[in-house]
Amino acid sequence: MLLARDLADDVRSGRLTPLDLVNLCAQAIEEHEQDVHAFAALDLDAARATAQAPGRAETPLAGMPFAVKDILDTRELPTEYNSPIYAGHRPAADAPVVSQGRRGGGVLIGKTVTTEFAFLEPSITRNPRRLSHTPGGSSAGSAAAVAAGMVPFSIGTQTGGSVIRPASYCGVTGYKPTFRILPTVGMKTFSWHLDTIGLFGARVQDVAFAAAGLTGRDLDIGTEVAAPPRIAVIRTVRADQASADAHAALDEAARAAAAAGASVSEIELPAELEAADAIHSTIQDFEGAIAFADEYDRLRHQFSPLLARYLDQAAKVQPDDYDSARRTAKRARQRLGDFFADYDAILTFSAPGTAPEGYGTTGSAIFNRLWTLMGTPTVNVTGLSGANGLPMGVQIVGRFGRDRTALTVAAFLERALQS
Amino acid sequence: MLLARDLADDVRSGRLTPLDLVNLCAQAIEEHEQDVHAFAALDLDAARATAQAPGRAETPLAGMPFAVKDILDTRELPTEYNSPIYAGHRPAADAPVVSQGRRGGGVLIGKTVTTEFAFLEPSITRNPRRLSHTPGGSSAGSAAAVAAGMVPFSIGTQTGGSVIRPASYCGVTGYKPTFRILPTVGMKTFSWHLDTIGLFGARVQDVAFAAAGLTGRDLDIGTEVAAPPRIAVIRTVRADQASADAHAALDEAARAAAAAGASVSEIELPAELEAADAIHSTIQDFEGAIAFADEYDRLRHQFSPLLARYLDQAAKVQPDDYDSARRTAKRARQRLGDFFADYDAILTFSAPGTAPEGYGTTGSAIFNRLWTLMGTPTVNVTGLSGANGLPMGVQIVGRFGRDRTALTVAAFLERALQS
Repeated sequence: MLLARDLADDVRSGRLTPLDLVNLCAQAIEEHEQDVHAFAALDLDAARATAQAPGRAETPLAGMPFAVKDILDTRELPTEYNSPIYAGHRPAADAPVVSQGRRGGGVLIGKTVTTEFAFLEPSITRNPRRLSHTPGGSSAGSAAAVAAGMVPFSIGTQTGGSVIRPASYCGVTGYKPTFRILPTVGMKTFSWHLDTIGLFGARVQDVAFAAAGLTGRDLDIGTEVAAPPRIAVIRTVRADQASADAHAALDEAARAAAAAGASVSEIELPAELEAADAIHSTIQDFEGAIAFADEYDRLRHQFSPLLARYLDQAAKVQPDDYDSARRTAKRARQRLGDFFADYDAILTFSAPGTAPEGYGTTGSAIFNRLWTLMGTPTVNVTGLSGANGLPMGVQIVGRFGRDRTALTVAAFLERALQS
Repeated sequence: MLLARDLADDVRSGRLTPLDLVNLCAQAIEEHEQDVHAFAALDLDAARATAQAPGRAETPLAGMPFAVKDILDTRELPTEYNSPIYAGHRPAADAPVVSQGRRGGGVLIGKTVTTEFAFLEPSITRNPRRLSHTPGGSSAGSAAAVAAGMVPFSIGTQTGGSVIRPASYCGVTGYKPTFRILPTVGMKTFSWHLDTIGLFGARVQDVAFAAAGLTGRDLDIGTEVAAPPRIAVIRTVRADQASADAHAALDEAARAAAAAGASVSEIELPAELEAADAIHSTIQDFEGAIAFADEYDRLRHQFSPLLARYLDQAAKVQPDDYDSARRTAKRARQRLGDFFADYDAILTFSAPGTAPEGYGTTGSAIFNRLWTLMGTPTVNVTGLSGANGLPMGVQIVGRFGRDRTALTVAAFLERALQS
């Protein structure tokens, strides 16, 4: 994989130029893209031209190439949301997060494959760790492009589990920041209370570097790791849906963290949070049925059967149930705030197992959706594998708005797993 | 003015057809639009065709014509945000709130004039109550179209005071629902934590009827008014910026409410809420600078000087200041929730005075922005005038999520002012 933060150092010291970075990507793309199918659109010539603009090396992102999930608007590359409804669509403006990438000195090289409207219908993208397996979804291309070394960092989105799950399956770091730290303007909306921008990179320090470069926030942790943290290990009432691989990874992560000095306690998820987990779909369904109103009313036949039937059902959620779900979520967020008085981070499953074989499913978000609803920063930490040799991530969940802490705790765990 | 709810009764009883309603609008447009300039785009032929679709009279909106501020996407009518940057722009899909209007059986007749990107640069729209005065902004056309009887209800938006202020200036009812009850998807984003869809109509029951028809929520209050409510009259620390007209209107509204049986207490705004009022601009500035990143970076010269200079300054707000402002807002929302244990509604200024003369300003949002930030339902109640004979509204603020209560209290006050 390409290590974004190390490459930035290479550029700053003059060992590499931004153009060299684009060429590194181009070389990996030449080698892997025919198998992986991570990109919906590419423009390496434009990227090379951008990379050669003067002063690029002195920018926060040091001319770092990046790719953006094709659920976000780009003016110069097609924006099709993997739907025939939007074939050839060209939005009038770049999504602000894309502009933030440009402002930070990044070099956009392409759009990555999303599942249809970031829902569950599998895409053409393959898992670079084993091509016969799904990369997960919905940010399939963003995760796979980083895993295959085709780009140092990428931008994806998560409404249920669309960043952490593919990151786990593809063996890359996925970082879903606190809700709205990265703007969702110019993202095709599925659920306005859930849609969250996320980042993929090789290591924790790489997604942290990218987040800092995009936002100007103090998130570039470098090689810093948290002082030994207080970690709550949580398996939830859905623990029986996690595979032996997932439990073994969580055990191993807890053991490694403790060995590195962390205080690690296995605890139950508070009832208010279990209640919130149960109503994620109420919020997603109600908002999705509204967000796609125009396409559904005019062009339902152009949705996949999976999404069309989902929206049929989603439209049945009543405003009272939705309002009640929103109150449940609010109570859970308050309870979670109290919870973090005693713990620096939660350690939980990233996914129920390693990447499923075949392409019939993108896997399950059951261990992700609650944290999307809570808006908390979460990080998929790499370094572990399942019995089949495929990556098996674990998830660090931090406190709302405390992204730097979440990242340094994730980096602490990442290092502990390397010892 | 056209009374939406009465017209719906006329349609349901067969006294009028949906086509008659479009023709009523067309007649008023023929008479007033040349002076008022409320519309950015009109398609009455398409509206007539839609109105004649079978079954229209049996829909929740009974074929009611409506107009939409040109800050919201429409496929079949141009969507230009009153900016040369978007001249001729045609989005790929209708904004969901427009689809909700269609789904409810409404008939879209046109797009109403917005100020440039819903900011402060005055538009060409004139105040139908006195053409030499501003209609306010940014939902200038939506307020003026209702005031001139050209449409029974209209959709606008508020990020600072863009619904309640023009409603007060134009002498119509303006209703800003609880945050996100009406979806902002397909609205050109200025500030994602502030942008709110609102409605304009003749009377409280008309905006309530429209809200119910758009959302399927139990908001159609008809002639219901609240049982005599507990009302807190609040003038804020900015009371000296309210004119004698505004104070007199507030006094008169408080007196009328008390005479009708309400419990009315003059109280001070809690300190947490004054603190939140002071940081509204921090949030709007920070988010606005991100939301317009692409247009600003490429086409700054095509903004009005007012907006271009605003964005220059807005970009200077730092993430830490923004995060701090968000925490201030959160504390204020919690305090406001407690506050509503003792009161059913707040009664406060809608605007500092009647519509300013001339077209050099759209007026001030200083008595609106806090309630936008709090996400609470607010209603401009009509029935009072300033010394110059122009309308002088007062504002009812309800509890977050309790829109029906806010509407029935507003209706209580509206009736009290007629006695």
